[in-house]
Amino acid sequence: MQPPAWLQLNRKVRFGDTDAAGVMHFHQLLRWSHEAWEESLEHYGVAPSSIFPGGRGQQQPPTTALPVVHCEATFRRPVHGGDRLDVTLQPTRLNPGSFEVRYTFQHNSDIVAQGLIRHVAINAISRQRCALPEAIDRWLEASSVGQINSL
Amino acid sequence: MQPPAWLQLNRKVRFGDTDAAGVMHFHQLLRWSHEAWEESLEHYGVAPSSIFPGGRGQQQPPTTALPVVHCEATFRRPVHGGDRLDVTLQPTRLNPGSFEVRYTFQHNSDIVAQGLIRHVAINAISRQRCALPEAIDRWLEASSVGQINSL
Amino acid sequence: MQPPAWLQLNRKVRFGDTDAAGVMHFHQLLRWSHEAWEESLEHYGVAPSSIFPGGRGQQQPPTTALPVVHCEATFRRPVHGGDRLDVTLQPTRLNPGSFEVRYTFQHNSDIVAQGLIRHVAINAISRQRCALPEAIDRWLEASSVGQINSL
Amino acid sequence: MQPPAWLQLNRKVRFGDTDAAGVMHFHQLLRWSHEAWEESLEHYGVAPSSIFPGGRGQQQPPTTALPVVHCEATFRRPVHGGDRLDVTLQPTRLNPGSFEVRYTFQHNSDIVAQGLIRHVAINAISRQRCALPEAIDRWLEASSVGQINSL
Repeated sequence: MQPPAWLQLNRKVRFGDTDAAGVMHFHQLLRWSHEAWEESLEHYGVAPSSIFPGGRGQQQPPTTALPVVHCEATFRRPVHGGDRLDVTLQPTRLNPGSFEVRYTFQHNSDIVAQGLIRHVAINAISRQRCALPEAIDRWLEASSVGQINSL
Repeated sequence: MQPPAWLQLNRKVRFGDTDAAGVMHFHQLLRWSHEAWEESLEHYGVAPSSIFPGGRGQQQPPTTALPVVHCEATFRRPVHGGDRLDVTLQPTRLNPGSFEVRYTFQHNSDIVAQGLIRHVAINAISRQRCALPEAIDRWLEASSVGQINSL
Repeated sequence: MQPPAWLQLNRKVRFGDTDAAGVMHFHQLLRWSHEAWEESLEHYGVAPSSIFPGGRGQQQPPTTALPVVHCEATFRRPVHGGDRLDVTLQPTRLNPGSFEVRYTFQHNSDIVAQGLIRHVAINAISRQRCALPEAIDRWLEASSVGQINSL
Repeated sequence: MQPPAWLQLNRKVRFGDTDAAGVMHFHQLLRWSHEAWEESLEHYGVAPSSIFPGGRGQQQPPTTALPVVHCEATFRRPVHGGDRLDVTLQPTRLNPGSFEVRYTFQHNSDIVAQGLIRHVAINAISRQRCALPEAIDRWLEASSVGQINSL
């Protein structure tokens, strides 16, 4: 069984993502990974303004912030401007206040790179650790079901 | 009459595009403009690797380069993370070796910002001015017909 | 007479600032321009946290925001990774609530590119136009004296 | 004993490095890390154009490329616009064709974040693994002496 649709995205590599070596400049992969997470939430039905500060019409920023505490990327093959990449997300709840997402980037079925971003939930004012927002919990739960089914 | 489909794109504003003032950081607009140009060429049917160096499978970079010689942006209203913007391109051939594209960004029919990027054609080796690549000429011609019809 | 020291900076071009054409990717110039403005304010003696939201230890964001309403850049010669550029700022007060800064980038005395960024002052809450912050006024005044003297 | 001067740099956090949460946007840290590596090489005396493609006056790109195969970052405390960070590099040769650099970012002696970038040497044409360039070997050797002395 396939992962759910909101965990399967794609991305076009743009000219400005490259450097003078002629291929993707490495840290763009982590930008793409975070943007894929934002897109996945939207496809699942979570409004960006319920998660991210700065949204249009927000009276207040969300009470829970989800800062990145760790990220990684591994590069397996060159990624070129103009490449259309398939991006698959594998989210995992680590504990009631933390989760991580693995991002696999493929070009024509070859894995070209992988990313990982780990977030913790904190109260946006006190900056104390807290539980994940309920919308993130639902997205994690639904994504996990999809992954179990896909085994 | 509407502009042709390849001149009407859209763009989602991502969290990383914002700054601590809570809205889009200004120079992202020029990145989005250039990326909209790349997307427009593809939608029209011009392969990125025929225009941009660094494409997969290129034996040689394209003989003609199209460096940016001027760009501008004007900001009319705040742009927020999560906004879905409509982007309309208006390309103009300036002379046989130069063209510019105006980019209008709208949110719910309000113009929020405008961009302009001007390119010249040069021989990639000698860096002397030369004629535009034929594929760009066709895209300009077809785009111009669309615009005349839309008056 | 030379412009004052806080209007004469320099910048090293980094590998990640280039693209697959082998030279600086165009919109970086506007990032560098804004960063040169931030650096100039510091050299003159204006604390970033008095001007920009997000500063360490800020109890509140500054009451006046200075959004960019217009920017431009013109590119005269290729800029390469590893280049050390001299950056000269020419600030101009346009009216009591607006100013612009011209940025000239030189490599070995050749002008390689120029930037322009125009800001307006707005109340950060109401978003209504207002007077420039007093620290910006002082920086503009002092910079203007330097420029007159340099004629 | 202190690490050598070319492994101790600093970095000012700019407004455009932040996001709407009011602090540094996470992936900037990897950009800063790579730029700190470029700066360290220069301070040690390695010309950028001997290592990076795209340098001014290069007749040919360097025969050996040093692509990033892995990177990581860990975030310990919020980093604010305007912060002046101390950056310490710890390079390690992993084998004759590969090395990594650890980057520690401190604000007022507190570690705020750490980065890691791992490179391999490849022939720029054949893309086969090869030995590190001699200039990188010298920099690694000299840096390693500094680190042993500092124990």
